[in-house]
Amino acid sequence: MHMYGNWRSAAAFRVRIALKLKGVAYEETFIDLDAGDQHAPEFRRINPQGAVPALFDGAGPPLTQSLAILDYLEETHGGPKLLPEEPRARARARSLAQLVACDTHPLYVPRVRTYLMQAYDLPKERMMDFVRHVFETGLATLETRLSGEAGTGRFCQGDAVSHADLCLVSLWVGTGIFGVETAPYPTVARIAKTCLALPAFAEAHPLRQPGAPVT
Amino acid sequence: MHMYGNWRSAAAFRVRIALKLKGVAYEETFIDLDAGDQHAPEFRRINPQGAVPALFDGAGPPLTQSLAILDYLEETHGGPKLLPEEPRARARARSLAQLVACDTHPLYVPRVRTYLMQAYDLPKERMMDFVRHVFETGLATLETRLSGEAGTGRFCQGDAVSHADLCLVSLWVGTGIFGVETAPYPTVARIAKTCLALPAFAEAHPLRQPGAPVT
Repeated sequence: MHMYGNWRSAAAFRVRIALKLKGVAYEETFIDLDAGDQHAPEFRRINPQGAVPALFDGAGPPLTQSLAILDYLEETHGGPKLLPEEPRARARARSLAQLVACDTHPLYVPRVRTYLMQAYDLPKERMMDFVRHVFETGLATLETRLSGEAGTGRFCQGDAVSHADLCLVSLWVGTGIFGVETAPYPTVARIAKTCLALPAFAEAHPLRQPGAPVT
Repeated sequence: MHMYGNWRSAAAFRVRIALKLKGVAYEETFIDLDAGDQHAPEFRRINPQGAVPALFDGAGPPLTQSLAILDYLEETHGGPKLLPEEPRARARARSLAQLVACDTHPLYVPRVRTYLMQAYDLPKERMMDFVRHVFETGLATLETRLSGEAGTGRFCQGDAVSHADLCLVSLWVGTGIFGVETAPYPTVARIAKTCLALPAFAEAHPLRQPGAPVT
């Protein structure tokens, strides 16, 4: 497979983890988001949205949207199952994933941050109030659900990694990048650290990809 | 089934269409979003996110997040299939659905609009520039994909209704509510109108629900 991604992209990170967990061979081309390469005509032909990830599985049109790609990999590839079989558990794992991938992450992507600064003439630091608010809202809801719901186990849904964990970790890693305080979210932290101790998560980590700042 | 929804909620609209298409008996309790009832402690116990829809299927914990609910209904109920069988077509339908449900709709929900007005001291009309920008970005990407990709048929994915259409229509109806110009999106318009001519979509329409303004 061939993925267009970026070291920093939370959505590409989720897909990278799934590819590694399932043992799918892939290569990744890094699109320079800071240089605006996602808006170049040649990339817009791959994904008219101008967003990563885009994944090619052989010939055929590119697959886009990280959650759709995760479902595609689940339906077409072997390796560990990343969604539980039982429908209610499955729905819970999906709803936790979507709490991140629908209701949190899309609010702080570069195109939103740029729009807010330009349209409302906000200096970066004031725009970042919105980013931190978005993280805090998402993390607080995750913490309430994960600490209060019977379905939580070693991971978000029971004792097996699911799409929910891939999304949780992609948000967690962002707290470091954006300077978000994490002390109020101990259950989120516990699960994130459990995941990041696994090789697939560690190897897929943004800071271990080409182009990432050296820490 | 028992759904907590609201006449205006795009996410509740999607689920309502699926319930009607699949012929699932349900009743809906309307949460007054203008009065802030989604933040009341009794509703936060149902959904800690303070968002609709929340769906009860018999006893057992509530199901949340519209896309997770759509997949749950697909996996547990009969009636017409709302995702194609073939994995690439399925992934395409999902990616179009997520273009709306992840990358567009969550950016203009009430809690974001309220935050922007309060944090940046924006009058409503200036905040609405952001809402229109979000609609226009989502609609333009949908139009480019739907008009250019071979998978498009009578509906978003081929000639059968899928999750993509439920999401497309939920965005389309919002253009009326928020005063977004629709002329640049003829393919989106064609599919939305084809959907809204079907009884399940028409009966699920926000303006036909209790609490909606009389037009």
